[in-house]
Amino acid sequence: MAGKVQERKEKLRVTLIDVAQNQIVSGGLASLKARDIARQAECALGAIYNVFDDINALVMAVNGRTFHALGADVTAAVEQAQGQSPNAQLIAMSKAYLGFAVDNTHLWRALFDLDMSVESQVPDWYLAELGQLFAHIAVPLAQLFPDLPEAELDLMVRALFSSVHGIVLLGLQNRISAVPRDQIEMMIAQVLNQVG
Amino acid sequence: MAGKVQERKEKLRVTLIDVAQNQIVSGGLASLKARDIARQAECALGAIYNVFDDINALVMAVNGRTFHALGADVTAAVEQAQGQSPNAQLIAMSKAYLGFAVDNTHLWRALFDLDMSVESQVPDWYLAELGQLFAHIAVPLAQLFPDLPEAELDLMVRALFSSVHGIVLLGLQNRISAVPRDQIEMMIAQVLNQVG
Repeated sequence: MAGKVQERKEKLRVTLIDVAQNQIVSGGLASLKARDIARQAECALGAIYNVFDDINALVMAVNGRTFHALGADVTAAVEQAQGQSPNAQLIAMSKAYLGFAVDNTHLWRALFDLDMSVESQVPDWYLAELGQLFAHIAVPLAQLFPDLPEAELDLMVRALFSSVHGIVLLGLQNRISAVPRDQIEMMIAQVLNQVG
Repeated sequence: MAGKVQERKEKLRVTLIDVAQNQIVSGGLASLKARDIARQAECALGAIYNVFDDINALVMAVNGRTFHALGADVTAAVEQAQGQSPNAQLIAMSKAYLGFAVDNTHLWRALFDLDMSVESQVPDWYLAELGQLFAHIAVPLAQLFPDLPEAELDLMVRALFSSVHGIVLLGLQNRISAVPRDQIEMMIAQVLNQVG
């Protein structure tokens, strides 16, 4: 009996994530409403909260998938850029990041736009995905700065990731400083070519 | 007669901006509701739309004030850093930017979080404020790259602004890569010291 209940709950969990993911893809995070999710998942409104603590937790589950797909794209870029200069490797990863953001803008934005006011615990799997991304960036950086203490290298990994994120974010935003995609790539290269 | 009507409308305009600004300061952009604004401004709900096309236009007016205050802080930092190295000037400006973001987090976020799905016209005053900010960054950059064509220099100004923005944004965000403020300053310096 317990197995059946568990199985149904797990099935609903996947359905809810699918529905929320599709909604974010089509309308962005702001368009996500619990009532609509329940209707599309063909469950009662309250059933959502048997599976997830709240809608934020559901979005985090979608973000987990997104992060995983993003990581796969960056990993593929890393593998393709093997043997190139450290700067070229950093640029290759950044291009993959930009490409993912362009192709999956709403999902990518949801990674960062989830309610900032909630000081909730960050799940372990989230930190693991982030750590993997940072580990990729650390490899060419360690080549560029072989003598940098680990703590500083770690900070520089975050600094460069954040820099590229900022260039992609504002580059894709109309109101601030939107530019064509090739110019976003140029800006990334301008900054990353300075490193080292 | 027309003068009186105009005067009342202008007074309401300022009141509405004040109310919206206070609400963003205390609760962030997401907490802004037309009904609450009307109640606090002691006007009818419809009266808001006699003054502003929509709530986005009201937020843009708040953002205008925010941008102006941010610009003043950065200008003060530029003046204080006169005579220092170009990199030191860039870092001084970035520190002012970080300080503003820390002290006015909700207002600063509203500059960037305003509904991204609307492809509306960007007001001229907005572009003027942005242009002023970019002009400040261009001065030390032109010293570092005296031979760079103007179009590339312009792109680099945007690239570095976006980089610092990204570092500040993610640095202040718990879920991604939050670090203490002095480490955010270190990350900014790490990147900016590479330039030139």
